[in-house]
Amino acid sequence: MNINFKSIGIIETPYMDFAPYQPVEEDNGEFKIILNPEYEEGLHKLNRFKYIYVLYFINKVSKKPELTIKPSWLGSFAPESGIGLFASRSPVRPNPIGLSIVRIKKIEENIIYTSGLDVFDGTPVLDIKPYIKDLDTKEDANHGWLDDVKDKDHLMLHIKGIPHDY
Amino acid sequence: MNINFKSIGIIETPYMDFAPYQPVEEDNGEFKIILNPEYEEGLHKLNRFKYIYVLYFINKVSKKPELTIKPSWLGSFAPESGIGLFASRSPVRPNPIGLSIVRIKKIEENIIYTSGLDVFDGTPVLDIKPYIKDLDTKEDANHGWLDDVKDKDHLMLHIKGIPHDY
Repeated sequence: MNINFKSIGIIETPYMDFAPYQPVEEDNGEFKIILNPEYEEGLHKLNRFKYIYVLYFINKVSKKPELTIKPSWLGSFAPESGIGLFASRSPVRPNPIGLSIVRIKKIEENIIYTSGLDVFDGTPVLDIKPYIKDLDTKEDANHGWLDDVKDKDHLMLHIKGIPHDY
Repeated sequence: MNINFKSIGIIETPYMDFAPYQPVEEDNGEFKIILNPEYEEGLHKLNRFKYIYVLYFINKVSKKPELTIKPSWLGSFAPESGIGLFASRSPVRPNPIGLSIVRIKKIEENIIYTSGLDVFDGTPVLDIKPYIKDLDTKEDANHGWLDDVKDKDHLMLHIKGIPHDY
């Protein structure tokens, strides 16, 4: 089965050849989702939401996905047996669809200004969905295998791109 | 730009010609994500997570998307001016990618047994990602335009598929 999607816009970020692992909320750069003008009408009332899901095509990755990985940001903390690809957020996946949650700063015409987005400049947009608190906030969620990792709290700062000493 | 993805598995649900608007956590039916066997290795350690994101191809929708919609479940409560498509979770979208958060019940070989999934039986899977509490739980999220709707609390029961007396 072949599934065909199309780009509905482009994401502009300051990241040209390096991007953080996850959205950095307080990044000072400018982050814009520029929807193709023909979709502008579809943004009506989106500004009432604080957060949105952005789905995008991870188009800068050409590596073949591996099913067992050792995330580089874990360094020597990576579990010895590695982690299954689907238990990770690695961008190298059978279908390279990226998913990020960002805060809306403002919307002007077909442009959504957002908090930090962990993608390269020029990334094609696939979809935008509202993040609805009662549906999407899972208070009893956990951190999965990350809870097993030594020094987890420190590593969470890495994964979240929060600057910190050591 | 043409973007090509492929099915990496199939979702089995009891929903043949009706599906709820959102995942119904306590549905008694059986919900399975059957990954193509060649991807089984990629599930290693996924069972340490309580929740996952499931991305799927909404393949049963043939309608053309409209940019302004009046969600049918809102009935007469729908805002008069309608809602922008991207401020909604409507399945009729330029790129029909579905996104649901479900709880893992158990994983056996290439099969993930989950809590209620709001999709038709036979829906093709695009991706599975772990739901990581610190990244994905936004305590300060809101309900967007839903907060403006009269009788919102009652409508949230509808959107969540929770049975209730009128």
